[in-house]
Amino acid sequence: MTKVGFIGLGVMGTPMAAHLAGAGHDVSGFDLSADALAKLTAAGGRAAADVADAVAEADVVITMLPDHPQVEQVVLAPGGVLDAVKPGTLLADMSTIRPETSIAVAKAGALKGIRVLDAPVSGGQAGAEQAALSIMVGGEADDFEAARPLFEALGKTIVHVGPHGAGQVVKAANQLVVGGIYGLVAEAIVLLEASGVDAGTGLDVLAGGLAGSRILELKRKSMVARQFQPGFRIDLHHKDMGIALAAARQADVALPMTGLVAQLVAAGRAMGYGSLDHSALLKVVEGVSGRTSEEV
Amino acid sequence: MTKVGFIGLGVMGTPMAAHLAGAGHDVSGFDLSADALAKLTAAGGRAAADVADAVAEADVVITMLPDHPQVEQVVLAPGGVLDAVKPGTLLADMSTIRPETSIAVAKAGALKGIRVLDAPVSGGQAGAEQAALSIMVGGEADDFEAARPLFEALGKTIVHVGPHGAGQVVKAANQLVVGGIYGLVAEAIVLLEASGVDAGTGLDVLAGGLAGSRILELKRKSMVARQFQPGFRIDLHHKDMGIALAAARQADVALPMTGLVAQLVAAGRAMGYGSLDHSALLKVVEGVSGRTSEEV
Amino acid sequence: MTKVGFIGLGVMGTPMAAHLAGAGHDVSGFDLSADALAKLTAAGGRAAADVADAVAEADVVITMLPDHPQVEQVVLAPGGVLDAVKPGTLLADMSTIRPETSIAVAKAGALKGIRVLDAPVSGGQAGAEQAALSIMVGGEADDFEAARPLFEALGKTIVHVGPHGAGQVVKAANQLVVGGIYGLVAEAIVLLEASGVDAGTGLDVLAGGLAGSRILELKRKSMVARQFQPGFRIDLHHKDMGIALAAARQADVALPMTGLVAQLVAAGRAMGYGSLDHSALLKVVEGVSGRTSEEV
Amino acid sequence: MTKVGFIGLGVMGTPMAAHLAGAGHDVSGFDLSADALAKLTAAGGRAAADVADAVAEADVVITMLPDHPQVEQVVLAPGGVLDAVKPGTLLADMSTIRPETSIAVAKAGALKGIRVLDAPVSGGQAGAEQAALSIMVGGEADDFEAARPLFEALGKTIVHVGPHGAGQVVKAANQLVVGGIYGLVAEAIVLLEASGVDAGTGLDVLAGGLAGSRILELKRKSMVARQFQPGFRIDLHHKDMGIALAAARQADVALPMTGLVAQLVAAGRAMGYGSLDHSALLKVVEGVSGRTSEEV
Repeated sequence: MTKVGFIGLGVMGTPMAAHLAGAGHDVSGFDLSADALAKLTAAGGRAAADVADAVAEADVVITMLPDHPQVEQVVLAPGGVLDAVKPGTLLADMSTIRPETSIAVAKAGALKGIRVLDAPVSGGQAGAEQAALSIMVGGEADDFEAARPLFEALGKTIVHVGPHGAGQVVKAANQLVVGGIYGLVAEAIVLLEASGVDAGTGLDVLAGGLAGSRILELKRKSMVARQFQPGFRIDLHHKDMGIALAAARQADVALPMTGLVAQLVAAGRAMGYGSLDHSALLKVVEGVSGRTSEEV
Repeated sequence: MTKVGFIGLGVMGTPMAAHLAGAGHDVSGFDLSADALAKLTAAGGRAAADVADAVAEADVVITMLPDHPQVEQVVLAPGGVLDAVKPGTLLADMSTIRPETSIAVAKAGALKGIRVLDAPVSGGQAGAEQAALSIMVGGEADDFEAARPLFEALGKTIVHVGPHGAGQVVKAANQLVVGGIYGLVAEAIVLLEASGVDAGTGLDVLAGGLAGSRILELKRKSMVARQFQPGFRIDLHHKDMGIALAAARQADVALPMTGLVAQLVAAGRAMGYGSLDHSALLKVVEGVSGRTSEEV
Repeated sequence: MTKVGFIGLGVMGTPMAAHLAGAGHDVSGFDLSADALAKLTAAGGRAAADVADAVAEADVVITMLPDHPQVEQVVLAPGGVLDAVKPGTLLADMSTIRPETSIAVAKAGALKGIRVLDAPVSGGQAGAEQAALSIMVGGEADDFEAARPLFEALGKTIVHVGPHGAGQVVKAANQLVVGGIYGLVAEAIVLLEASGVDAGTGLDVLAGGLAGSRILELKRKSMVARQFQPGFRIDLHHKDMGIALAAARQADVALPMTGLVAQLVAAGRAMGYGSLDHSALLKVVEGVSGRTSEEV
Repeated sequence: MTKVGFIGLGVMGTPMAAHLAGAGHDVSGFDLSADALAKLTAAGGRAAADVADAVAEADVVITMLPDHPQVEQVVLAPGGVLDAVKPGTLLADMSTIRPETSIAVAKAGALKGIRVLDAPVSGGQAGAEQAALSIMVGGEADDFEAARPLFEALGKTIVHVGPHGAGQVVKAANQLVVGGIYGLVAEAIVLLEASGVDAGTGLDVLAGGLAGSRILELKRKSMVARQFQPGFRIDLHHKDMGIALAAARQADVALPMTGLVAQLVAAGRAMGYGSLDHSALLKVVEGVSGRTSEEV
């Protein structure tokens, strides 16, 4: 039994906190939404009055927040997590944010004797609900081992990938590859259909060979049928492509395909498809090719 | 037992013709290389004196040639296959060429009563040697069924994907996706390494999730180790990206990622890596990021 | 007075042939269009019965054709220009085609004692009508000097840029820069407008500094006003981007921006703007940014 | 005579502050560099002890800082400019930063009765030294008119382009166009040279037609000669491309060419050319094309 302070009870954080409470941990949570707090109570956790109340007695604090400004506010700002916790507390920030912010948080924590991990996840809402997330962890090996039992209540693939920020870098690499494969599959579909070839048949062949991918396996039928219920929204992938570009800038590397994929995802959002699944990159490629389709 | 005329006994055609002979078919082959003809004889085939001699008595003609100019020369030019065969012969062109040339060959064949299939393959030299090719076939369904027994001696995945040219379109779609995934994985590796993250560990995580692909499965270890023995050479992929762009132009679609992938593959060739495996796209991304690596 | 055979009397060729006739040359022209032949006669030229008739007595043959297949047909095919002219004739192909075809034509000409220049033009229909074309000439210096008086009746900037094919390479370089600047200006306009900045005012500033260009000077007002009457049609620029990519392939270089510009121009055509001025690349960038505008 | 507080005396700020002092204004300046303060004193200004000392009595404050974190620190942080000035002071931030920061500064100023302009410049060090900058100003028209006499001591083209942030947006648009044209010219040069065409001759033709630009006019000779002394360093252009992408993200538009240009500029920096002139994008395109050149 671990005392867990959990900040950020959105579509990801709510089921994650519930899994921790269900596994017998003592979970104090906080979120600005009263609804979210009620769900936490119903799942066996305690609704805290504010951030400080949620984390003051915690052994481990988990934050699951939208982006780096929220992490800076909740963790670094005066009265935030770093001010409110006991020395020796372990902070696992499971938000997906820029590596440089994760590194800054780790440095700020170290000055106060707080151990920090960056531990972004993939697997989306479904993965959170089914405790089947992949968790990519950056930070010290000892801290990773200390947090592992909690992570095991949340996910299936739990990997220590390197030093502070490394979790975010791996997540960024994951998202650039995922976004890029969606774009490539979209271009394949548009080429096949515009050439008078049945896209389903064509993609079946691709899926069985060197072009095969998890995305082709899971999404080729829905893409050809123009079914784009999320899943993972283009708006969120747009945020993640921004992180990938920021990580590239931080690492001083040039990533030409990532630069273009970021603009295609931005186009998806700008064209009004931000709330569709990221497989709706197909609608961007259709758009530039003057082809229109009806979502089923 | 089918009488097969086989034109083009290169690294692909030689094992393919041998498989056909081994399966009991009567194979007459032609190539400009005396060595290639000797190999055919050793495999149980007959070395023909020229194209006309190879195909004059054939029920089925198979061509396996480098690119569209060779197909135009061997098939369409005066004295070529269409002039030399009996009416009713079935021509399966297994070369990877532009869809528009396949369609033109089919039309020219139809005028002379010659049935034509386009049947490009994927799987490379290893696939040809192990009779494990994927074969993507465009043309009439009856003709596909007629050729199927021969194809089954050459490959494992044999799919009729649509009308004349459809095989080439599917092959083009396959190659643009494969090239693109190599580029994306290369960018992931460069980002990970430049950020101080162990690329092998990071790619293991990617391979297990939505970013997973056949390429990550088969090639991530060799890419991280900078082992680029082909496999499938960048020079050949460069040719195939030209076909993909030509197919897009023919279909009047815009494929932004394909346009960029084509230039990255062209860069691989221009930078002197044309004879390396196409996974050596990694060296292009390293080059633009000022990172150098030694091939092991 | 020079005897000129002129093949290809389209929107460019018709005024060009008329200028030559008007300058006192003896022009025999041929085109499949009877209308075009009538215009030539009206301008003081002679309507020939076929290609051979047009060129048989010529000192200089000028061809002005849509693309390389037409040049191959008219010049290289049996009965074409090379078969019909006298040895020593000078052939100036003013079509915009791939450099490799220009080189092939020059080689074929050399075998028959025919001197060949590639001499593509820029300046469009207006330039042709006003005898104000820019003419980029590849081939031997002596042949260039021999043709110069004719070129001076057609254009204002007449430059010998290098050996056979060099004219086409310079034209290709010109078109990739022009297409790219249109794309960049389009992105500037979309960024300014979407940010609530008056695009006209913003572009005025750009036009006065290092971002300045002939295109900003001539077209910024019409682009902001969404006036896209050609000028030079996107369909033609699409053809020219294909030539630029073919030239890059021939020269074994990678041109990343050209690869993308080619797809943006292809998008313009695919989206239905092929008959608009190439400045309508703005509509492509607007499209991917979910912004729509009415052409005035 | 205006009392001016000037913060940021780098390669741009030092000559700018000197021009203001030379025009008879009462300039109090601050910078962390003692050298810079000495230069200000030599130019007739007063070396202030800190930011507050520099701005406390000022009528107009000018900030000329590297990027948005410095602006946030100097202007917004406790004890910064907004805390130290008198109500009614006019703050002209001439730094090149993200539009969203300029807007945030303007809002923070408004809360304290401070009038704010964003007024980024182009023209580089030479423009600063010669008082020949272009100044793009966002904010209220009255405030622009109030600051105009000071701007006229610094630049030649002074334009009020719109509301708060508009100056930054125009600067961003300028930089994406400039970076893009360098890339296009670089690709033209590589294509010409690799095709065996004299690049100088070819670019002369381009410069005289629709492909013409200020960059071709000023830089084509130095680019062909591989002379890359700055001018404006790639490192700075890399920063500016980040701003352009941030502005696009803020405005919710997709800019495909800008996305690619940003990566090409990043490549220039990553390849080690960060301190060369931005025309050294040529070295990036040469690099991907396997072509090397010696800087003269």
